[in-house]
Amino acid sequence: MPREITAFSNPLIKRVRNLRDKKHRREEGLFLAEGLRILTEAHEAGRVPQYLFFSKDMAGHALVRTLIAATEAAGGWAIETNADILSKLSGKDNPGAVVGVYPDFAVTLADLDRSRSGIWLVAERLRDPGNMGTILRTADAVGAGGLILIDDCVDPFSVEAVRASMGALFTVPVARASWGDFLVWLRKAPGQLVGLSLDTEHDYRAPRYEAPTFLLTGNEAQGMPGFMAEACDLLVKIPMLGKADSLNAAVATAVMAYEVLGQQRS
Amino acid sequence: MPREITAFSNPLIKRVRNLRDKKHRREEGLFLAEGLRILTEAHEAGRVPQYLFFSKDMAGHALVRTLIAATEAAGGWAIETNADILSKLSGKDNPGAVVGVYPDFAVTLADLDRSRSGIWLVAERLRDPGNMGTILRTADAVGAGGLILIDDCVDPFSVEAVRASMGALFTVPVARASWGDFLVWLRKAPGQLVGLSLDTEHDYRAPRYEAPTFLLTGNEAQGMPGFMAEACDLLVKIPMLGKADSLNAAVATAVMAYEVLGQQRS
Repeated sequence: MPREITAFSNPLIKRVRNLRDKKHRREEGLFLAEGLRILTEAHEAGRVPQYLFFSKDMAGHALVRTLIAATEAAGGWAIETNADILSKLSGKDNPGAVVGVYPDFAVTLADLDRSRSGIWLVAERLRDPGNMGTILRTADAVGAGGLILIDDCVDPFSVEAVRASMGALFTVPVARASWGDFLVWLRKAPGQLVGLSLDTEHDYRAPRYEAPTFLLTGNEAQGMPGFMAEACDLLVKIPMLGKADSLNAAVATAVMAYEVLGQQRS
Repeated sequence: MPREITAFSNPLIKRVRNLRDKKHRREEGLFLAEGLRILTEAHEAGRVPQYLFFSKDMAGHALVRTLIAATEAAGGWAIETNADILSKLSGKDNPGAVVGVYPDFAVTLADLDRSRSGIWLVAERLRDPGNMGTILRTADAVGAGGLILIDDCVDPFSVEAVRASMGALFTVPVARASWGDFLVWLRKAPGQLVGLSLDTEHDYRAPRYEAPTFLLTGNEAQGMPGFMAEACDLLVKIPMLGKADSLNAAVATAVMAYEVLGQQRS
């Protein structure tokens, strides 16, 4: 049976709201996701919330009922609440109908099976949570084997990243690694490391991308450092015909990933 | 000679801060941009602020001096201020070194010269300011002739859109039009209207895109309505191999635009 919380002062509300901060996410090992579409995607990927919050007027919705049943069957709490509290939890004026609190999940390089896909995305020092989520969404769309985060990237479990991923956080394996550990793992088996760069004359459409191709995207403001560029098997450039000198990092990653996908499918 | 404002209570500060709201932008015919990179890009594109705010410690920076001189030469005000006020104006904790207030500029369909480029971007009911800015940035990068906004799109002059455009707002012509006016204008001369859709079997890499190609991207949540899809010469689909059913709108637009550019260049 769902519980009910209608008081802002309830300690669970404060605890959940604190998950908007990285420090609390790390301490609790939990993170927030919101919206029926994302929570349903999570459920289909086998992820069930520990706490599920929903508004009373949505309690009868078929998808919400499915989520409530799945949450309770897994030993979690389904909690009926109101729009004000949902707003407070999600930090949005118009919150989705549901908010879920999930245990985070760590993936290591050793967990990744590179035979799973011909495309893998790698990002170093990615700083914008919107870019993080959008790259996850693209990774899902191109059927990438996973996303590998190098060094100090923004937290993929942040509310903004989860939101921008539209649920892909639940379906795409995300591994975190240092650059050194990544290179050691990469070179243990076949795989081509392709870096997106502005300092090369190789057009990104010219090379043939064999499977598996690992696409490396550098930091939004600075691109990748020289030692990373040197470790790449190939540097390629997306043509820029205008006044600006770079594309948005998530856009550049997607343009590259779809070129690789297009080649590998044809 | 630069003026100085250090008091929050100064009426100009309030007026400029209000430009973060669409209503005030429309009343004043002014908008805000921030950051040395974006303001310099604007200057190179021939756009000079009516008011230029900069912090005292940046007053000696060569690019800031250039902006101050250009602003004053054009009859605008260069205003030395402090980090707190810059923060208040930009709405960011870590504001850029400069904030500029510019007269907005309206472009109509009649102003667009379709022989200028083989690629034009068209968006209908685009709602997210980050997507708006990112699409502008991509439009610049592919050398698009311009961006045409159909019906009720988010304001391209919003602070978030200008920021995400990284200055492309100043270099890419942006015209606003109703769907009806757009179609009449489009059919007056050669040009292929290509719609991004999920309801077609045509892979986006299969067709040959002749110049000029007009790429139509639909609303983020709903895609384009049926009557728009029917008016397209061609509907194409970007393959989706994962669990999700769509890409981010700015990403989908970029993947398409680069396919068109790649074909037209080769």
